[in-house]
Amino acid sequence: MSTLDTLLSPGMVRSAVLPVVRQQVSALEPTLARISSYHLGFIDEHGEPSTAANGKLTRASLMMAAAAGVGLRPEDVLSQAAALELLHNSTLIHDDIIDADDLRRGRPAAWKVFGTGLAILAGDALQALSLEMVVDDLGPARAEISSAFAEANRLVLAGQSRELTVRLGPDAGIAEYDRIVEEKTSALLECALVTPALRAGKPERVLAALRGAGRHLGLAFQILNDVEDIWGDPAVTGKPVRGDIGRRNPSFPVLAVFPASERLRGLWQAGDTTAAHLQEMADLVEESGGRRAAEQTSRDHFDSALAHLGRAELSPAASTELTTLFDRIVHRTA
Amino acid sequence: MSTLDTLLSPGMVRSAVLPVVRQQVSALEPTLARISSYHLGFIDEHGEPSTAANGKLTRASLMMAAAAGVGLRPEDVLSQAAALELLHNSTLIHDDIIDADDLRRGRPAAWKVFGTGLAILAGDALQALSLEMVVDDLGPARAEISSAFAEANRLVLAGQSRELTVRLGPDAGIAEYDRIVEEKTSALLECALVTPALRAGKPERVLAALRGAGRHLGLAFQILNDVEDIWGDPAVTGKPVRGDIGRRNPSFPVLAVFPASERLRGLWQAGDTTAAHLQEMADLVEESGGRRAAEQTSRDHFDSALAHLGRAELSPAASTELTTLFDRIVHRTA
Repeated sequence: MSTLDTLLSPGMVRSAVLPVVRQQVSALEPTLARISSYHLGFIDEHGEPSTAANGKLTRASLMMAAAAGVGLRPEDVLSQAAALELLHNSTLIHDDIIDADDLRRGRPAAWKVFGTGLAILAGDALQALSLEMVVDDLGPARAEISSAFAEANRLVLAGQSRELTVRLGPDAGIAEYDRIVEEKTSALLECALVTPALRAGKPERVLAALRGAGRHLGLAFQILNDVEDIWGDPAVTGKPVRGDIGRRNPSFPVLAVFPASERLRGLWQAGDTTAAHLQEMADLVEESGGRRAAEQTSRDHFDSALAHLGRAELSPAASTELTTLFDRIVHRTA
Repeated sequence: MSTLDTLLSPGMVRSAVLPVVRQQVSALEPTLARISSYHLGFIDEHGEPSTAANGKLTRASLMMAAAAGVGLRPEDVLSQAAALELLHNSTLIHDDIIDADDLRRGRPAAWKVFGTGLAILAGDALQALSLEMVVDDLGPARAEISSAFAEANRLVLAGQSRELTVRLGPDAGIAEYDRIVEEKTSALLECALVTPALRAGKPERVLAALRGAGRHLGLAFQILNDVEDIWGDPAVTGKPVRGDIGRRNPSFPVLAVFPASERLRGLWQAGDTTAAHLQEMADLVEESGGRRAAEQTSRDHFDSALAHLGRAELSPAASTELTTLFDRIVHRTA
C-alpha cells in the first residue's frame, strides 16, 4: 500500500477513530461510561443515542496524517489516536469544572448534568484509560510512546496550573505566555506528530523536527485563537466574545501591549465587565498594536511550524496533507 | 545480600520512600508541587516545612516487603513504591473534593486551602506523575508493571464511581459491596504485592496468589473499617463516628442485615442525622447481627489473605513480615 493510499480525509479519520473511542469508553464502569459518552456526544443526558458534536478530532487527524508520512498504515496508530483524543477530552471535562463553564460544544457541560463529583471521576477515568491504552498496546516502541503520552499529560496539567496562577497578574510577559501554550496546547500536538515516528523507529532529527512543528503549531493556533476571542465573530468561534478579557485572562494581544499602556492597566484593574468596558479595552489593545502584533506572531509561528515539518523527511503527499491540516487548525477553515 | 537483610521496618520504608516522593513532587509545576507537598504533609499552607502526618505508606510497605520475598533489593522497586503512594494520594485529593470533606489527616483538605480548581489539577498531576514514573523506569518488566498500575488506576476510579452510585440505595447486596471494595481498596494492594513479582519474573501461580492475598486483605480491612466507623472510638480512628450511616453510605454491617429488617429500612430512609437517630440505627444493626457478621467476614477474608500469601512461594522471613503487615493494616495496630 502506498502512503498516498493511506491519506485520510477528516471523515475517514472520524469513521476510523470514533468507533475505537466509543468502544473503549463503553467498557468503563457504567456511570463513568455514561458521563464520558455524554461528553463525547454519543448519547444525550437521558442515555439516548445522540448526534451531538464530538469535536474536530484534531489530534487524531494529525497522528493519522503523520503515520502516513512515515510509511505506517492508519491501523498502526489507531489505538494511540483514540487514546490521545481521550486524554484531550479528560482535560476538557475537568476544565469545565475548573472554569465553571456551563456549556461544552453547545450542550450543558458534563458537571452540570452529572454533578461535580462524578465529572471529576469521569475526567480521571479518561486520563487513566488513555494511558492504559498506550501502555497495553503491543506494537513497536510501546515504551517510548507510553513515555511520550505520560510526558504530554504532565505538561498539559502544568500548563493549566500555570495559567490559573498567571491569570492573577498580566505582567507575565510573552516568555511565560509561550511556556503555558507550549505546555497546555502544543504538548498534545507534538505527541500526535511524534507518536507515529516513534513507532516507525525514526531517528532523533525527525522526532525533533516533528516536535518543533507541533510546538509552533500550538503557538500559532493559540495566539490567533486569542485574537478571535477579542475580535472574532461569536457565530464562527462558537464562544461568547471577549471571554478572556472579561475574566482578565491575559491573552497574547493584551500581553503584547500591556507594559506600554498605562491606560490599559487602569481599565484591566477595574473590575468592570460590561460590554462597553470590554469594547474600550479591545479598542485600546487594537490601537496600541496588540492585534497586529498577535496576527504577525501567529503567522511567524505558522511559518516555523511548516519549516520544521519540511525537515521531518515525510512523504510529499503526507507533507501536503499536514500543511492543509495545520492551516485548518490555525485558521479554523472547515 | 540475603533477603533477611532487606526486610525493612516501617521507619526504614519511610526513610527510603519519602525522599523519592518528595523529590518527584517538588519537580512538578510550582503550584502543583506546592499543593501536592501540602497534601503530603511536607509543607504547611504557607509553604513552610511541616512535620504533619503523611499517611502510613501502607502500599509502599507492602511492596517493599514483597520485594524482599521474591529476592529483590529495596531499590529495585523504590520508584514503583513511591509511584503507588502518589497514585493513592491522587485519589485522596479528589475524594475530599467529591465528598466535601474539610479535613485530611487532621489538617484542612487541599481543596479547602487552594480551591477546587487547583486541587483537581493537583490530583490529576499526581495520577499522571505516578504513571510517568513507572512508564519511564527502565528496569525489568517495565511494560507489565506499567499495565498493572494502569489497571489498578482504572479499577480504583471504577470503584469510586460505583460507590457514589450505590450510595443512592442500600439494596445493593454483598456481591456489589465486595466488587466495590475489590476495585477501590484491593486493587492498589494487589498492585503493591504483584509489582515486585513481575519485576522478578515470577510465574503466573505466584502472581495469582499475591493478587488473591491483596484482594482478601482489602476486603478484611474495609469491612473492619466499616465496623469501626459505627462502633469505633473516634480518638483511635481519627474520623467522626458514624459518618457512613450519617451519609447513608451502605457499609458491610448495614448491608448484612438490611434485607431482613423492616425497621432499619424505615430509619435509613428517614433523613434524620441526629446522634440519637444514628445511635438507634447502630443499636439495631448490632442487635440484628450486622456487627457480628461483619467481624466474622473480616476474619474470614484475613485468613484467606494469609492462605493466599502462603501459596506465593516467598522467603519465610518476608512471609512473616507480610503477615505482621497484614495484621497491622486490618487491625490498625501501630
